[in-house]
Amino acid sequence: MKKRVLVPIAQRSEEFETVGIIDTLRRAGAEVIVASVDQTEILASRDVRLLADCLLSEVTDQEFDCIALPGGLPGAEYLRDDVQLTALLKKQAAEGKLYAAICASPAVVLQHHGLLQGKRATVHPALADQMQNKDGLNERVIIDGNCVTSQGPGTVLEFALTLVELLYNAATANAIAKGMLVQR
Amino acid sequence: MKKRVLVPIAQRSEEFETVGIIDTLRRAGAEVIVASVDQTEILASRDVRLLADCLLSEVTDQEFDCIALPGGLPGAEYLRDDVQLTALLKKQAAEGKLYAAICASPAVVLQHHGLLQGKRATVHPALADQMQNKDGLNERVIIDGNCVTSQGPGTVLEFALTLVELLYNAATANAIAKGMLVQR
Repeated sequence: MKKRVLVPIAQRSEEFETVGIIDTLRRAGAEVIVASVDQTEILASRDVRLLADCLLSEVTDQEFDCIALPGGLPGAEYLRDDVQLTALLKKQAAEGKLYAAICASPAVVLQHHGLLQGKRATVHPALADQMQNKDGLNERVIIDGNCVTSQGPGTVLEFALTLVELLYNAATANAIAKGMLVQR
Repeated sequence: MKKRVLVPIAQRSEEFETVGIIDTLRRAGAEVIVASVDQTEILASRDVRLLADCLLSEVTDQEFDCIALPGGLPGAEYLRDDVQLTALLKKQAAEGKLYAAICASPAVVLQHHGLLQGKRATVHPALADQMQNKDGLNERVIIDGNCVTSQGPGTVLEFALTLVELLYNAATANAIAKGMLVQR
């Protein structure tokens, strides 16, 4: 069965992070569901217009092998404030399944909802002050158990390839990295 | 006056390259016009759905400081086959203004229309055999006069930051690279 990855998006999500996660995981063969917490059409952080595959409300009864959050502000705040997404993330974490966030979202979404407790995590340097656990903030990608965090647009392929490695294996991640010209 | 950058797209253009070019150049303050050679709504190479700002036919009488082509197949072939885009690219090159391509597009679009003659250029390694000039094919980004080429998704930020450096200056490119967490 295909690995299923949920990518929740909102108005003003960071488009390069959003697309980097989707693109890389689809190259790995995952079924990636791009679900908007508001309207299907998103005006992303640098005015790129993206269409979600569906609304988040349509998939809240589904199971995912991974939930991966793009950053961008205020996009991350809209993700934080969505009660259905919050419930999905808490369930994902409680079941020991993979959840991940990049850029502003580790602080704004995951930490806000208590999902970084006892975890090492990283975040965009502009939000480092907001992190309760200061250990590891200079790292580009951190894996701690079922939680993966990363810093920003320039680290998104490393972040997404880490998710590929965890969902599949290192050989798959390495083959995709080679085709995408990623230096690892 | 704002620098104006044209990003032509087509069905099956590579979404991560497309968005990386747009995102980075908008961070620099450029007016980026995302223009589709067919319909406004694009299904990109990994099924990301993007909306162009306009159709290319609406902007063919305009002047651009740079024209930057994403890759992706068959997206690059649709760009190659658009007669209005071909005319714009030939005019841009003849006037000594900046034109650029990444991934498949240096071979499929620029070389096809004679726009790499006498130029050093790079391309995605999968298309290296098609390049007439084999010099520099292992380089991630090549600047030769008013022509900039690059290899693929993992090199798109280096590519776009090179365009920022040429349109603006190194300090602007370095500041954006820092905010995007790009190691240069």
